Amino acid sequence: MDSTKSTDEAAINIAELKSAEGKAPATHDVITKATPNPSGRAKRGIAIFDFVLRICALVAALAATSTMGTTDQTLPFFTQFFQFQASYDDLPTFTYFVVANAIVSGYLVLSLPFSIVCIVRPRAAGARLLLLIFDIVFVAFTIAAAASSAAIVYLAHNGNSNTNWLAICQQFGDFCQQVSGAVVASFVASVVLIFLVLLSAVALRRH
Amino acid sequence: MDSTKSTDEAAINIAELKSAEGKAPATHDVITKATPNPSGRAKRGIAIFDFVLRICALVAALAATSTMGTTDQTLPFFTQFFQFQASYDDLPTFTYFVVANAIVSGYLVLSLPFSIVCIVRPRAAGARLLLLIFDIVFVAFTIAAAASSAAIVYLAHNGNSNTNWLAICQQFGDFCQQVSGAVVASFVASVVLIFLVLLSAVALRRH
Repeated sequence: MDSTKSTDEAAINIAELKSAEGKAPATHDVITKATPNPSGRAKRGIAIFDFVLRICALVAALAATSTMGTTDQTLPFFTQFFQFQASYDDLPTFTYFVVANAIVSGYLVLSLPFSIVCIVRPRAAGARLLLLIFDIVFVAFTIAAAASSAAIVYLAHNGNSNTNWLAICQQFGDFCQQVSGAVVASFVASVVLIFLVLLSAVALRRH
Repeated sequence: MDSTKSTDEAAINIAELKSAEGKAPATHDVITKATPNPSGRAKRGIAIFDFVLRICALVAALAATSTMGTTDQTLPFFTQFFQFQASYDDLPTFTYFVVANAIVSGYLVLSLPFSIVCIVRPRAAGARLLLLIFDIVFVAFTIAAAASSAAIVYLAHNGNSNTNWLAICQQFGDFCQQVSGAVVASFVASVVLIFLVLLSAVALRRH
């Protein structure tokens, strides 16, 4: 009697242990499946914001490229042998500006599908890291173009008496205004790109 | 006899299960304590590399600042009223260059303790994210300084016939050489800073 009771107890104990053993992975599954939801939603929000910012950067870069690329001012007076004309390819810095901003625009268009991948699969850290690496390289390109052109525009506006470089904006007012607008657009594009890098870093940190 | 045998078996089963139960958390502990080790070691390696790169960037930024800050060339000939002299503060872009590189050097010195925190506590993601955010802002500063000065240095070397800006490097050769060296040092500093940002992003991804 005593031994059978102990056998029953043992059977119950085993059943309890087995059920506990059976439950443990089940609850674990629930936890691993439940926790990513808020994190995944936040990641998806970041990815959508990333996509919107990317389009803003694209618009700014395209505006910079087209504004600079269409600068062409011919003065209304001319001599017998010479016509006074200013366009962006008179200065190599502005040519670099157009090329760099066109490349950045192209990159931003190509990066849109990867950004969509990050929206559809918010946990795809590979695509995000790839975007971050390229983003920072193109941040460097855009800022270099904007800063070098800003230095030349400043010189065109104010000249420099020490080096005897005269301001040309008195003659070519429209040209200078258009170039200044392009530089501002390029700075806007680079600031948006910096935000994109920060956003990607925050998204990677939440991984 | 049969019942006692089954009791014995049950007892053995319980003992086995209990020992398995007792072992399970132990092995689980071992796993949770063992897995961070390679990850933590990799993170510590990244943090040490980050520290070394940070010192390289600091040296480059300090070299750029001091090289540009000490440019001062006086030509050996002079008129009654005028002495030909060139120094960095003749051009506002070069003044910005010195200020920006000095600020970046100061930031890099201040960031060294945070980099050490990342070595001591490789899993401190907060310090790493903070460093990444500031790093990218100072990447922008450094590249802007380097690119704008590069545009002016190019102009000083080659001049521009369209805008009637003459090259000044024929007269001020030493000045131009020193300025070019400073621009190269600043570009080195900004490339190292970009690597630092990428390294921080990779470290955050492993988190």
